Amino acid sequence: MPRKRSRSAAFQGEFGAFSHAAAQKLLGEETKMVACETFRSVFNALRSGTVSHAVVPIENTLHGSIHENYDHLLECGVPIRGETSIRISHQLIALPDVRFRDIRRVFSHPVAINQCRKFFDKYRQLEAIPFYDTAGSVKMLREKSPGGAAAIASESAAAIYGGKILRRNIEDDRQNFTRFFLLTKQKESLAPSTTRWKTSLVFSTRNVPGALFKAMACFALRDLSLTKIESRPLRGKPWEYLFYVDLLGRDTDPAVRNALDQLGETTEFVKVLGSYRPTL
Amino acid sequence: MPRKRSRSAAFQGEFGAFSHAAAQKLLGEETKMVACETFRSVFNALRSGTVSHAVVPIENTLHGSIHENYDHLLECGVPIRGETSIRISHQLIALPDVRFRDIRRVFSHPVAINQCRKFFDKYRQLEAIPFYDTAGSVKMLREKSPGGAAAIASESAAAIYGGKILRRNIEDDRQNFTRFFLLTKQKESLAPSTTRWKTSLVFSTRNVPGALFKAMACFALRDLSLTKIESRPLRGKPWEYLFYVDLLGRDTDPAVRNALDQLGETTEFVKVLGSYRPTL
Repeated sequence: MPRKRSRSAAFQGEFGAFSHAAAQKLLGEETKMVACETFRSVFNALRSGTVSHAVVPIENTLHGSIHENYDHLLECGVPIRGETSIRISHQLIALPDVRFRDIRRVFSHPVAINQCRKFFDKYRQLEAIPFYDTAGSVKMLREKSPGGAAAIASESAAAIYGGKILRRNIEDDRQNFTRFFLLTKQKESLAPSTTRWKTSLVFSTRNVPGALFKAMACFALRDLSLTKIESRPLRGKPWEYLFYVDLLGRDTDPAVRNALDQLGETTEFVKVLGSYRPTL
Repeated sequence: MPRKRSRSAAFQGEFGAFSHAAAQKLLGEETKMVACETFRSVFNALRSGTVSHAVVPIENTLHGSIHENYDHLLECGVPIRGETSIRISHQLIALPDVRFRDIRRVFSHPVAINQCRKFFDKYRQLEAIPFYDTAGSVKMLREKSPGGAAAIASESAAAIYGGKILRRNIEDDRQNFTRFFLLTKQKESLAPSTTRWKTSLVFSTRNVPGALFKAMACFALRDLSLTKIESRPLRGKPWEYLFYVDLLGRDTDPAVRNALDQLGETTEFVKVLGSYRPTL
């Protein structure tokens, strides 16, 4: 067996962010993790070779696709080699000596706050205060010890910064998942998996009636299942669209290869972003 | 001509929000505007008859579809009767007596802050502070007069709260548009328009290969142009998807009616959300 190359993975957010959890799930605890402030800096670190891997969110069941990361993926050229999903559950976290009845202010990212509306409706005495990052709000409690304060973040953020979970799973919707891609130039990156291969690609068509139908025909004629299709208007080019497609199959499968060849004939632009086996 | 019925329109956010601007563009300055805290409360106001109209964002070129509002649309049953797009441009706003060189802190919604990264890279002395709402951050300046502070919001937020624009159009990306729907039970709502009719619908398919292809065939066979298609996984039902489709045509056009009939045969569920002429 080849010796494991040393691994480091960039993700966006503070340690304890959901992206951090996704990176650990995909790469194990022994990978060196590198926290980055923005998605752009994650991709820069990957491209420059500062890190061997990157883990980025690509879509969320409540909020949809993260177009910014599709843009970075197209620009960056490093293939997708893994995929996983993380259930987003929010914990109310305070410093160990703080009791629930002492809390007046709750810090977190506005998206997380919005996902816990029922909790705030129930506890009217709590004021929600927007903060840059979920995990970062727990880190801030630890560093600044503001009075009567708590944070909303993940269970691992509580563990990392020594916070205590006062109320568990305070999110309104249990069916809130974020899907992450693993990017790397390395080929032997992941543990063997038995899940079915998936391939992600992007293509664009001209706005003529039936253009998308012809594109769909490439997959339907070969009985390939799509697990995602999404159009995104290209604002600089009125009436042109970028399509995000995920399908079941690997880019080296003959049916997939043939479908991609035919797609190249009928569309303006096709780019395969990678083939991978999801980590459950 | 029928006498204009009295109009009132609910939107989410504070006065001066981009939704407020969209509502004014769709309905004119004389409509009574009702600011609501959440999208849910906008739809509640519409359903209960507290307002005659509602204006809600449905997608943004950088951030994609707003699934929450698709959910409300499906649940609410009030048809879409209008559409418009607003370019999102951000202004740096302060109280009239504040000079740019005095500013140290800039309040705004984190999404707006993120869309002005180049501005903050250039002016390193400025600290970005997350706030609940763009227009609300200008309102807060007016009410609390915090020292050395500015806000990022729309031009109309500056006008409404008596702020002064210190730097114009500080957004990174000029191609940032948000698309809004107008909902109402009234039929004679809008000024005559010459734009082409559009119809928005939602359908779901079972996960069998070619299911989407068959759905697309309903439109392609009649040369109907799609202007949007997006799949959204139904998390409670693994491998089932909801599709958002917009097409050029009106639900009363024979070709559209026939396409919808055929779509009903080949899919699990179809719902027309409305036909409308976009307001440019």
